[in-house]
Amino acid sequence: MRSMELFRNRRSVRSFTDEGVPDQVIAEALEAGNLAPSAGNLQARDFVVVRGIERKRQLADAAHSQMFVADAPVILACCANLDRIASYGPRGRELYCLQDVAAAVENILLYLSSVGYGACWVGAFNEKRVSDALNLPINVRPLALLPVGRPTSEGRPQSRLVTDDLVHFEEW
Amino acid sequence: MRSMELFRNRRSVRSFTDEGVPDQVIAEALEAGNLAPSAGNLQARDFVVVRGIERKRQLADAAHSQMFVADAPVILACCANLDRIASYGPRGRELYCLQDVAAAVENILLYLSSVGYGACWVGAFNEKRVSDALNLPINVRPLALLPVGRPTSEGRPQSRLVTDDLVHFEEW
Repeated sequence: MRSMELFRNRRSVRSFTDEGVPDQVIAEALEAGNLAPSAGNLQARDFVVVRGIERKRQLADAAHSQMFVADAPVILACCANLDRIASYGPRGRELYCLQDVAAAVENILLYLSSVGYGACWVGAFNEKRVSDALNLPINVRPLALLPVGRPTSEGRPQSRLVTDDLVHFEEW
Repeated sequence: MRSMELFRNRRSVRSFTDEGVPDQVIAEALEAGNLAPSAGNLQARDFVVVRGIERKRQLADAAHSQMFVADAPVILACCANLDRIASYGPRGRELYCLQDVAAAVENILLYLSSVGYGACWVGAFNEKRVSDALNLPINVRPLALLPVGRPTSEGRPQSRLVTDDLVHFEEW
């Protein structure tokens, strides 16, 4: 089953070769991201593509000094746009736009994996410091940093809980 | 590009034929869901598979009377498990487990689309009423309802903003 292979083959990649990532790959990855559904199709998500060494270091510092983040040729900063989701009120700000960004991130990771690139979903960072590094407006919230590059190795799949432990029928 | 086709072909489906959805399809969809990454690989997400007519009506009522929800042969309720994410503190509860569920939902939607089923990501509902209908424990939060079935039509893709409007380089 092709789509299942896609889900299985994705890895969290934290070690990258020196090979760069072409602009075209980044453009297609972001197109894949924005093909994810979003609340009311408002697409309340924005992306910042970072290649500059100094700025990558600032992002790695903001991510509690996870320095592998700076070692990637490109970092994609995936952000919620609180202005664009405003019509949904608090549930929009606190849930929908977070989901919208996360769905986009998953598409980006799947796309990159399908064309031989690797990335890692980094969520542990100081949002204020990332916002400062990227000069984000006050109503744009950074939610994921994705260092992207060619993986140094194939990596191994993470183990998973047995699905039966997570699935319930009719009620809990 | 195969993965791009997968992202493009997914539709939000709100009208279903009477044909059922085999248990095997649901099982594989949920496996696809849990192949999505999660914070610390904690997999802080649980799923409830609902086929009972009365309970589906309760969920549709809780979703502000979006009655198409009850017309689907199956509803997948996708939930965050706040106990399983507890080690990450407030950021885990308010961000990571929401993202973990959303990434799983996106995989589920992509998988279902790839095997000819349709679903719709429903986020507008009263969480307390959904929790009551599903008998969820206090530390399990329902975040998405996915009515699933065979689509009555192919549907049309939603329009998207021009990617250039969403993408920034180096900084905002």
